[in-house]
Amino acid sequence: VAKRLEKFKTTIFTQMSMLAIKHGAINLGQGFPNFDGPDFVKEAAIQAINAGKNQYARGFGVPELNSAIAERFLKDSGLQVDPDKEVTVTSGCTEAIAATILGLINPGDEVILFAPFYDSYEATLSMAGANVKAITLRAPDFAVPLEELKAAVSKNTKAIMINTPHNPTGKMFTREELEFIATLCKENDVLLFSDEVYDKLAFEADHISMASIPGMYERTVTMNSLGKTFSLTGWKIGWAIAPPHLTWGLRQAHSFLTFATCTPMQAAAAAALRAPDSYFEELKRDYSAKKAILLEGLKAAGFIVYPSSGTYFIMVDHTPFGFDNDIEFCEYLIREVGVVAIPPSVFYLNPEDGKNLVRFTFCKDEDTLRAAVKRMKTKL
Amino acid sequence: VAKRLEKFKTTIFTQMSMLAIKHGAINLGQGFPNFDGPDFVKEAAIQAINAGKNQYARGFGVPELNSAIAERFLKDSGLQVDPDKEVTVTSGCTEAIAATILGLINPGDEVILFAPFYDSYEATLSMAGANVKAITLRAPDFAVPLEELKAAVSKNTKAIMINTPHNPTGKMFTREELEFIATLCKENDVLLFSDEVYDKLAFEADHISMASIPGMYERTVTMNSLGKTFSLTGWKIGWAIAPPHLTWGLRQAHSFLTFATCTPMQAAAAAALRAPDSYFEELKRDYSAKKAILLEGLKAAGFIVYPSSGTYFIMVDHTPFGFDNDIEFCEYLIREVGVVAIPPSVFYLNPEDGKNLVRFTFCKDEDTLRAAVKRMKTKL
Ligand SMILES: CSCCC(=O)C(=O)O
Ligand SMILES: CSCCC(=O)C(=O)O
Repeated sequence: VAKRLEKFKTTIFTQMSMLAIKHGAINLGQGFPNFDGPDFVKEAAIQAINAGKNQYARGFGVPELNSAIAERFLKDSGLQVDPDKEVTVTSGCTEAIAATILGLINPGDEVILFAPFYDSYEATLSMAGANVKAITLRAPDFAVPLEELKAAVSKNTKAIMINTPHNPTGKMFTREELEFIATLCKENDVLLFSDEVYDKLAFEADHISMASIPGMYERTVTMNSLGKTFSLTGWKIGWAIAPPHLTWGLRQAHSFLTFATCTPMQAAAAAALRAPDSYFEELKRDYSAKKAILLEGLKAAGFIVYPSSGTYFIMVDHTPFGFDNDIEFCEYLIREVGVVAIPPSVFYLNPEDGKNLVRFTFCKDEDTLRAAVKRMKTKL
Repeated sequence: VAKRLEKFKTTIFTQMSMLAIKHGAINLGQGFPNFDGPDFVKEAAIQAINAGKNQYARGFGVPELNSAIAERFLKDSGLQVDPDKEVTVTSGCTEAIAATILGLINPGDEVILFAPFYDSYEATLSMAGANVKAITLRAPDFAVPLEELKAAVSKNTKAIMINTPHNPTGKMFTREELEFIATLCKENDVLLFSDEVYDKLAFEADHISMASIPGMYERTVTMNSLGKTFSLTGWKIGWAIAPPHLTWGLRQAHSFLTFATCTPMQAAAAAALRAPDSYFEELKRDYSAKKAILLEGLKAAGFIVYPSSGTYFIMVDHTPFGFDNDIEFCEYLIREVGVVAIPPSVFYLNPEDGKNLVRFTFCKDEDTLRAAVKRMKTKL
């Protein structure tokens, strides 16, 4: 294995999902629904396949999807972008992240992350030879430590990467935090990479796109995907929105990482993004009910539960159960309780910071959530 | 744009396909069929979508596809591999190439390519910080210059990358050439990356997988894809077969480049690879007829035509028409003749080496090929 990847292990999502299958445990680990995506989107994919939309797509996206993404972004964030020059379709948001980082970051550039972070951020930054600094968001509210962040920005800082709503904590960056970060970026000529894949799962507050903060669009790459919003995580349709000078770099990387993304699924994604408002309202209503079940259950089981404003994740503290760390707790949970969760220490530069925490997802049907909750209440 | 990608332009395939649309020219440039893939494969995709196979796949591939790939490899190359430990599904062969190179090559490692080469090879090697050496295959027969290759291998050589059948020349590496390269690899402890996406389009000779040469499997990554064999280039299903120690590195890169590949299309790919032998025979028969039309037409139009044994490409010399280089010739061909071809100079480290050449594809229906040939015969 190349040195750039030496320190990384099999992703925790794969590890935990394999363990779930092996032990027949209820999987509240990796964030994929155990229910299906909407029929109108599946129908659109089938139509595209039958209509012969099966050859290479335009490298940066089929025109109808680029347009649908631009329309959606206008509706959601109030920003008008050119679908052909500022939107790039990728094979999932994971590829958008890789293309952005490999396309725009040079060896030795410093990039600031907020820990805990989705594991691909650190791995792709390592592939790019970047120096990673991490600012830790701490329980109970996972607020951005503003002065610590300010002190971390140096003349080598090339980019700050955020994720809002935030996986794995459920935190949503507040307007004040976004404006503080924006000012730092503008004053220090720093780029901003924003992963917003959970933007439609914002329960306690409105989602705010960093690109919509005045003066930020021109230095921001906004990344999103179809999977979470349409319960189709396996289709792997993502995108990056950025001004032309940033789009150029990330498209170059995209060209050579995957060249293009699955054509019929792009056609279906365009139909999905044009869903009526009622679709998004219903999604949120459904998820609110699921969230309530998991939240009450985790409290009743005895966890210290932290507030989650967005995403389909809840972060809790397992200290009351007396385990040494998150890995040991999760192993016990799988083996003895029959429930899979994600141990978040892998999402920190310093694993110690996450050792008391565990992440659960509620993107499962209500019966599954109830069954998991019951196991935890009785067996923990 | 990051330095690792500075020297690269918009891929020639995108450039030429956009020009084809703009000028309404017949597109014999980028290698995608203008006919559809087989119904039984499309049907399998539709079934998978309807059956709810729409969530994240296992990162390295859905079990049924990994098995189908292993079965196919056994049938084609006589090699038995473990589907779970030696097969990795990727988002097209382009991603298999990127994952292999970013997962196994360190900065400063030397990698030897044969020019002309598919443009992603050089770009991803640049992303990995490798030093690229290229050995030029020269017309008329594009034979490997054995002594030149031998002299190029140094103690810094980490890998040799081949592509057989070879895009853009149509050359197939002979058993003698493969054995010579194999001996070099074994004597100098060099890895071998083999892109075999055109293996089912071998017309004049049998395809030989480098991995089947004695002693080579353990140092070889064999890459392939669904697109060319099943006329579904837009589905972007590829894979890499390699012994576990090489699979580990490329899977790590894959995890962070795309994480997983489109689930329902993987299910369909498994069905495709289990097609009866008659499917592959018919494919070759169809393509032989198409090839004959283009070959005769190019000769009749006045090109110097080089023999193509495999792939759906034919390489020719445009010298008889008196243009300075391949770019100028191709521009004239689009504007004045109404046919798009690929100027191959971008596939050489030294563009001069390709300036007399042009590549045409015959992966188009017979009427389209006849129309293109007619335009060239009358207007060139
Ligand atoms: C490939 S896992 C992507 C993110 C996610 O679903 C999770 O954090 O569980
Ligand atoms: C993304 S283009 C892949 C290769 C090909 O089709 C070509 O060489 O034309």
